[in-house]
Amino acid sequence: MSEFSTIGLITKPEDARLSDTVHSLVSYLKSKSLDILVDQGAAILLQDPDLVGQTRQDMARHCDLIIVVGGDGTLLHAARSLVSSQIPMLGVNRGRLGFLVDVSPDDIAAVLDKILSGQYKEEFRFLLHAEVVRDGVVIAESEAFNDVVVHVRDVVRMIELDTYVDGRYLNTQRADGLIVATPTGSTAYALSGGGPILHPSLNAIVLVPVCPHTLTNRPIVVDAESRIEIKVCERNNPPARVSFDGQANVKLLPKDCIKIRRQSHLLRLIQPVNHDYFEILRAKLRWSEQL
Amino acid sequence: MSEFSTIGLITKPEDARLSDTVHSLVSYLKSKSLDILVDQGAAILLQDPDLVGQTRQDMARHCDLIIVVGGDGTLLHAARSLVSSQIPMLGVNRGRLGFLVDVSPDDIAAVLDKILSGQYKEEFRFLLHAEVVRDGVVIAESEAFNDVVVHVRDVVRMIELDTYVDGRYLNTQRADGLIVATPTGSTAYALSGGGPILHPSLNAIVLVPVCPHTLTNRPIVVDAESRIEIKVCERNNPPARVSFDGQANVKLLPKDCIKIRRQSHLLRLIQPVNHDYFEILRAKLRWSEQL
Amino acid sequence: MSEFSTIGLITKPEDARLSDTVHSLVSYLKSKSLDILVDQGAAILLQDPDLVGQTRQDMARHCDLIIVVGGDGTLLHAARSLVSSQIPMLGVNRGRLGFLVDVSPDDIAAVLDKILSGQYKEEFRFLLHAEVVRDGVVIAESEAFNDVVVHVRDVVRMIELDTYVDGRYLNTQRADGLIVATPTGSTAYALSGGGPILHPSLNAIVLVPVCPHTLTNRPIVVDAESRIEIKVCERNNPPARVSFDGQANVKLLPKDCIKIRRQSHLLRLIQPVNHDYFEILRAKLRWSEQL
Amino acid sequence: MSEFSTIGLITKPEDARLSDTVHSLVSYLKSKSLDILVDQGAAILLQDPDLVGQTRQDMARHCDLIIVVGGDGTLLHAARSLVSSQIPMLGVNRGRLGFLVDVSPDDIAAVLDKILSGQYKEEFRFLLHAEVVRDGVVIAESEAFNDVVVHVRDVVRMIELDTYVDGRYLNTQRADGLIVATPTGSTAYALSGGGPILHPSLNAIVLVPVCPHTLTNRPIVVDAESRIEIKVCERNNPPARVSFDGQANVKLLPKDCIKIRRQSHLLRLIQPVNHDYFEILRAKLRWSEQL
Repeated sequence: MSEFSTIGLITKPEDARLSDTVHSLVSYLKSKSLDILVDQGAAILLQDPDLVGQTRQDMARHCDLIIVVGGDGTLLHAARSLVSSQIPMLGVNRGRLGFLVDVSPDDIAAVLDKILSGQYKEEFRFLLHAEVVRDGVVIAESEAFNDVVVHVRDVVRMIELDTYVDGRYLNTQRADGLIVATPTGSTAYALSGGGPILHPSLNAIVLVPVCPHTLTNRPIVVDAESRIEIKVCERNNPPARVSFDGQANVKLLPKDCIKIRRQSHLLRLIQPVNHDYFEILRAKLRWSEQL
Repeated sequence: MSEFSTIGLITKPEDARLSDTVHSLVSYLKSKSLDILVDQGAAILLQDPDLVGQTRQDMARHCDLIIVVGGDGTLLHAARSLVSSQIPMLGVNRGRLGFLVDVSPDDIAAVLDKILSGQYKEEFRFLLHAEVVRDGVVIAESEAFNDVVVHVRDVVRMIELDTYVDGRYLNTQRADGLIVATPTGSTAYALSGGGPILHPSLNAIVLVPVCPHTLTNRPIVVDAESRIEIKVCERNNPPARVSFDGQANVKLLPKDCIKIRRQSHLLRLIQPVNHDYFEILRAKLRWSEQL
Repeated sequence: MSEFSTIGLITKPEDARLSDTVHSLVSYLKSKSLDILVDQGAAILLQDPDLVGQTRQDMARHCDLIIVVGGDGTLLHAARSLVSSQIPMLGVNRGRLGFLVDVSPDDIAAVLDKILSGQYKEEFRFLLHAEVVRDGVVIAESEAFNDVVVHVRDVVRMIELDTYVDGRYLNTQRADGLIVATPTGSTAYALSGGGPILHPSLNAIVLVPVCPHTLTNRPIVVDAESRIEIKVCERNNPPARVSFDGQANVKLLPKDCIKIRRQSHLLRLIQPVNHDYFEILRAKLRWSEQL
Repeated sequence: MSEFSTIGLITKPEDARLSDTVHSLVSYLKSKSLDILVDQGAAILLQDPDLVGQTRQDMARHCDLIIVVGGDGTLLHAARSLVSSQIPMLGVNRGRLGFLVDVSPDDIAAVLDKILSGQYKEEFRFLLHAEVVRDGVVIAESEAFNDVVVHVRDVVRMIELDTYVDGRYLNTQRADGLIVATPTGSTAYALSGGGPILHPSLNAIVLVPVCPHTLTNRPIVVDAESRIEIKVCERNNPPARVSFDGQANVKLLPKDCIKIRRQSHLLRLIQPVNHDYFEILRAKLRWSEQL
């Protein structure tokens, strides 16, 4: 008897290429007599009268395991909404290898056989929680699994940002923006900005400036327990915005402050026992590939 | 008798801090019995009934030397509009050292004494000419002294660009953008993007990607005679724009092509004989500064 | 009554510029009626018949606090030999600011007044322990406070290194070398190699390749509990060496393996309460300095 | 009747894998009734009594075209010794694609048919000429096709170098070394040091520091007509050396000066008409490869 008896399926509704994988998954789960809950996206793909689309809240209440079918982005989205429920998640990729969704659709039955029998690795990942504060009032807040990014909007000018770590002044940057990334996000936008790779097991956050107009910059890695505050300077700053995992842009005004801290709940990521992060780094980023 | 008998003055109208410098300059030039033409910006600061603001065209027709008072940006602007006139330009900085405007207001009389007596260096700088082509029609064109920048607009997604050099496929980039910079521009936005410094005497252009999502990137320097074409890929590209020296944004659509070549005319930059580019690099960028 | 009643003094014997500082320190400590032990270096500078140079072992046995006068290198050296004794250390810099020795000689009395009265911060730093294994035998071992560096020797050729983390294959590098650095070392040689800054509170290690001949590289930060193994490949490798904090070079042969793990003891670094790591970063590296 | 009637063959003697290619080449050239001269390396592989190994000088005197079989290193070596003879060179690679030797052995007959009938591209590459001056006396000199590299020897300490360009002070570097590279060398060691790619048509030189201990560095590209001088500082510098294309190390003393200028002769590189530098960049370096 598996510890996972009710399985949730989450996917991106508009992507028809996922349909085969989702149907196979349901057949497999039914063959194992497991209870299945599907989100709206999976319900649309399945068109199965027995499987009505559920809200995330209902899935959170009843599932023992959530299987996300899609790309890293789909899992990022699910993770932000489900992290506080503490339900383990498993990512099945859509053909292209992902950092978070590295189970291939072809292997899904074999992999699930093992996972349901208790042979799996559980990896804990943290998310960031960010608040946008204006005149002392929180005007927006969000979770971020990859990164919180403050960025100039639509004009070719630099913004000026003061950053504080645990209340202590860190620096002032004139740049296109600033990325605050988790280890999970260190292979996403922070990589494009020139940041280091952080192993997912690290309880650390990296701050990577985007196109700073200075030679004297270098990313800094700080403890994930740090409270980070980014203040938009008053001096003639062009329009800026903040985004969370590339979503939910909030327009910023001078003097706005973005307060970032670790989300208290950890995401539980289920992985096959032979999961190898370094192999994914090499395969997906061609990291360290020899010429 | 100086080769420069009619001197033009160009400045930024709204910057009152320039007023003293412009007044001193006019006094100096009058004391030398030189003819003076001023642009609208200088006329506003001077409020001198004898000095009516002239159009750039009139200045181009009559002046032997243009003195630009302000920052690098003011000189960039003047250069774009006057490059084809071939009139030499001299930059007087407003207090903060610039790469192009490195004559200090305090030194202006001594420097001009020498320049008017023929003791000066003349440096030639090239500009870029860019055309934006949509469905075979040129929808916009501009000169650029620093750079032509294609950049994503206002969203946290990457654009995909195909670049060709002299009709030959160079590469495809998924990035926030792409900078095509002159040597003059190599210390501006291209520097923020991680590009090398190009000595102003080089007839070369550097292509610097902005936040490419790949590890395998590196700026490339090509001959300034190259014809460069940047094509916005059709695949679901987010809104993009192109800017010229950070000005005159043009919104781009998929399949738009930006064609870049060297402007045929060279800008003639007049400098004191002791002008030292490397010293400006060290002083302004703190380049190679020892710890 | 201070918790620190026996104070040890360590310094570099050959540096006469330290003499004033060491004399002042002894006068201060005598005025407080504290017991003083000095190492050979300090004894030579002091020429005080009451203060005979002690071995590190004796100092470790009797001191409650060690004051190191000199530069970061002097403290690195003392830390390697005294880390297992767990005695707190305080660094007094010789005029030039250090990352580890940031108490100025001018402030020493005021700073010590506070520290002796219990007003101080205690920071824990970890060291690395490295073993060089040849044919199954440990041929050398050392502590490193900054870094363990494998590097090619004296020829312009690349070495090839296979790296494993916790027994798992990480990558193969063809490069001039490989730096394995602590957070303390992240502002030393690892910085020159392009690595990120790691806050000293992190329990993390960064691996930074030196001049890798590939575009696909990027430093990686891993947990400090990781066991790291670097194997010199058999394929025609040029002569290589390994060094520890830039000291104690060991010549390497193909198939040699360097095994690196965290030293079990933590160094206890005593700092004034107003110690500010970010300020030292900005002051010493000019990190994030605006143009 | 081809303009190339006497063909020289140069190869690395010790590499038996080249034997087939060299034999095929000779058969092909004999079938075209062309005169053949071989160097010692090719003679050893061929063991043909009609083809006695010639000196480089004799080959330079009689050949119309030199075919180099091997890797980029073999062509670098031949280029340094033959550049002043102005004989065109063609590189045949040994299986692994090279930047300079990009004709595949399998294509050699078809490619040579075209080249001998006049269908080819001729590319001109410049070399550097370097002199090591001690106390006013030239103690060593060499050509370099890729780069002149000043580097610390065998110890983990930095050297300090003052660089001058056309007699003007450029900067002082504390680093592991300094690379002065041609466009040809920009994809070799200079790439490992973080330098930009320079298109081979550029008449430019790039200066790339090796592991500078400062944040404020950035490679600089200067005109190839510049005279570059690198002075080893007097201040306690560790042992250093200078190498030319990774060959011919010369040990340096404090106050030694390395004077670098463009070699007056250009190397004539013969290429198939469909030769595509950008394709080689992408294929060999995986430059700009998409994830």
